[in-house]
Amino acid sequence: MKRLGTLDASWLAVESEDTPMHVGNLLIFSLPEDAPDTFLQDVLARMKNSGTVEAPWCYRLAWPGFLGRLLAPYWKDDANIDLDYHVRHSALPYPGSERELGVLVSRLHSHPLDFSRPLWECHIIEGLENNRFALYTKMHHSMIDGISGVRLMQRVLSTSPSEINMLPAWCVRPEKSRRRETSGSGMSGLLSQALDAVKEQAGVTPTLWSAAKRLAHSSLHPGDGPAAPFSGPVSMINHRVTGQRRFATQHYQIERLRELAHASGGSLNDIVLYLCGTALRRFLLEQNDLPDAPLTAGIPVNIRPADDQGTGTQISFMIASLGTSEADPKSRLLHIMDSTRRAKEHLQQLPKAALTQYTMLLMSPYILQLLSGMGGRMRPVFNVTISNVPGPTETLYYEGAKLEAMYPVSLIAHGGALNITCLSYAGSLNFGYTGCRDTLPSMQRLAVYTGEALEELEDLMATGFSS
Amino acid sequence: MKRLGTLDASWLAVESEDTPMHVGNLLIFSLPEDAPDTFLQDVLARMKNSGTVEAPWCYRLAWPGFLGRLLAPYWKDDANIDLDYHVRHSALPYPGSERELGVLVSRLHSHPLDFSRPLWECHIIEGLENNRFALYTKMHHSMIDGISGVRLMQRVLSTSPSEINMLPAWCVRPEKSRRRETSGSGMSGLLSQALDAVKEQAGVTPTLWSAAKRLAHSSLHPGDGPAAPFSGPVSMINHRVTGQRRFATQHYQIERLRELAHASGGSLNDIVLYLCGTALRRFLLEQNDLPDAPLTAGIPVNIRPADDQGTGTQISFMIASLGTSEADPKSRLLHIMDSTRRAKEHLQQLPKAALTQYTMLLMSPYILQLLSGMGGRMRPVFNVTISNVPGPTETLYYEGAKLEAMYPVSLIAHGGALNITCLSYAGSLNFGYTGCRDTLPSMQRLAVYTGEALEELEDLMATGFSS
Repeated sequence: MKRLGTLDASWLAVESEDTPMHVGNLLIFSLPEDAPDTFLQDVLARMKNSGTVEAPWCYRLAWPGFLGRLLAPYWKDDANIDLDYHVRHSALPYPGSERELGVLVSRLHSHPLDFSRPLWECHIIEGLENNRFALYTKMHHSMIDGISGVRLMQRVLSTSPSEINMLPAWCVRPEKSRRRETSGSGMSGLLSQALDAVKEQAGVTPTLWSAAKRLAHSSLHPGDGPAAPFSGPVSMINHRVTGQRRFATQHYQIERLRELAHASGGSLNDIVLYLCGTALRRFLLEQNDLPDAPLTAGIPVNIRPADDQGTGTQISFMIASLGTSEADPKSRLLHIMDSTRRAKEHLQQLPKAALTQYTMLLMSPYILQLLSGMGGRMRPVFNVTISNVPGPTETLYYEGAKLEAMYPVSLIAHGGALNITCLSYAGSLNFGYTGCRDTLPSMQRLAVYTGEALEELEDLMATGFSS
Repeated sequence: MKRLGTLDASWLAVESEDTPMHVGNLLIFSLPEDAPDTFLQDVLARMKNSGTVEAPWCYRLAWPGFLGRLLAPYWKDDANIDLDYHVRHSALPYPGSERELGVLVSRLHSHPLDFSRPLWECHIIEGLENNRFALYTKMHHSMIDGISGVRLMQRVLSTSPSEINMLPAWCVRPEKSRRRETSGSGMSGLLSQALDAVKEQAGVTPTLWSAAKRLAHSSLHPGDGPAAPFSGPVSMINHRVTGQRRFATQHYQIERLRELAHASGGSLNDIVLYLCGTALRRFLLEQNDLPDAPLTAGIPVNIRPADDQGTGTQISFMIASLGTSEADPKSRLLHIMDSTRRAKEHLQQLPKAALTQYTMLLMSPYILQLLSGMGGRMRPVFNVTISNVPGPTETLYYEGAKLEAMYPVSLIAHGGALNITCLSYAGSLNFGYTGCRDTLPSMQRLAVYTGEALEELEDLMATGFSS
């Protein structure tokens, strides 16, 4: 028996038919050249017979007393885990391209977890064209956050293609300091950190509300400060969401993005925002729903605090414009670079202690919107969540199968029907788009448009950006 | 806008995480010999582009007023059906045998339907070995019952292998009298009929309760009448159920069963009960849970009323022993034949009007247990539901693909973790076993044991039954 942390319990409180609070990751592997026909069946058999299921994978929710689900739940070790239920073998229909994979992962990610069992599933997916297979793992956010899940996967994999008989993620003993170590990455880690801060300060919630109000007020007087919360327009992606999801992916060589960053004088992150903003502009134009004001993104960023003389950075949060109102690609990129520069300058002026406070304040309207379930019923704090999370740099293997790409599959909430999370891996940047099925009927296109935006920008740079 | 009937609304009232009230059917086809690689993709494309979605497939639930889901829902035409959501393409992992199909259909049948959309899904499943594919259709019982669903499928299929460009089930205009026509078959039809009878008699519910009590009392004084409700023992399959399902299938040539019926002097139905009872006995023995008293089955039967001079029959209901307490095969069969003979004699003495009343009374404890959700908290009315439903006699085709077998996928409720429904088709009898995943961890074996019971009985008959 183990109590849930405040944050973990929060994810359960927000859980609903329309907003299931599980996250996932999708790993794509090449089959080893000499793999027998039974390779995946053997992997599955090993996954189901690797011994004790470790925490948190062995936890299931339990409720105290006779009051049913009125009281807060706690974690209980499940002595009787039915691994045939949790570990699943699936296949893609012909022709087994990325499209069929996207459809299947969308479906799997839309199904709610079974709350009477440990809150996770792992799916081995065969039939991906060019001798590949995929591994989709899904877990409730109250159990493990998405980025920690990715890290855990990483820890299970090997840098050696000849290592075999590897343990599945749920048989690896947890590192004591895992959550702390990994809380520095992405939106999940940031939320975790901000909520930890809230938890540590009794009675801070009213302060958060009034700070949120001040931030909202500042959005009416933008001056030349950073983009403020609530300053983004209301667009189709900021209403209430329904329960079904879409998932799409893209991946690019980081080197291509770095060259563009170098040529334009911006950062890698600016280029990511440019690609997302450009794709979103085109997508919303086609849906006749492009707002006049530019969309804003909520973005976790690494900042070196003003009083830190070393090389240490700290995770913070910024709201930046995606320049979707700019028709000209060059103006759009400059607009985004200007917006992120201003946001970062603002953050970099703050000493370390103030940075933590400020991050929490900046995120508070989003957290409150998320936890109150009011998202989509009020003005959006920002229009879309975009995170860029550093992943493993070395090529990894599982039972001799080479990991080709890994994508985060995120959760969305009312008021924010789209999440874009990028994860770097061995020289490439992997974009995972998670969206609400009903809100974004052609979300696949958004992923395609990111690629076209990249090519367009490369052409533009080739002819001289400053001209 | 269309009101739900009392019965249809009842299925919604009973719906819960643990007892989703959808039913399904599984059709297995051979690919046409000259089928192109894109055969299934083409079928899917046609399914999605065949024009208007007809009732009841276009209905979704809507709730009146501002009170959310407190008031009774009604049916509303969904003008914006997302057929990409409802019509799905799936595939089986290697080797694509009946085992992998069973696992996939179990999973698909375990997922709840999305209550914000029309309450059905249709899955084309490729990768079934020996050049076959499957079609699994799932629909909420409030929209259409399982047997009507099978009939509807039948009406869509053709007796000609050369007919192509066929309409999917949801584009076929409903026959006005469909429900009435088909209410004569199986457990669903019987429930429908019994509940219609309840509906037509205001204030009948108290009468039902007292009749149920009388029937319960009669079970304490069995005499030589038929097996009474509540006379079966409590076994592992009669507790509360959880939300995940298992599904298994078997099919046999009807001729084999007919020969056994002829040789033993029993009916085809007696042989079906013998096979199920024998498999259940072995299964429960292995689980160390075989009760001393024989299990009972609730069975829809066709009866010729005592005052009917013609050839007309009427559907009624009987509770018969499955002879699971008898170790000797021959004694078991004789015990079952004796039990069904007594139950039928009892029913056949009744004139037509009384038969309807009696059927309703006999079923009332089950109906009340079902609708009150009290199943599994009291003594079971009977231990297992076994129906044997006549299906199409001619070989059928869909777009040139031959229908090899069709199986009903049923629902289960608290107190009855197992449903066995048999459907005849073109000379074979198709057994569909639907069970609770947690209650019946090795349900697959039950299907295997049915086959072994058949062989054992054939051997016994070959050496002379009466000897």
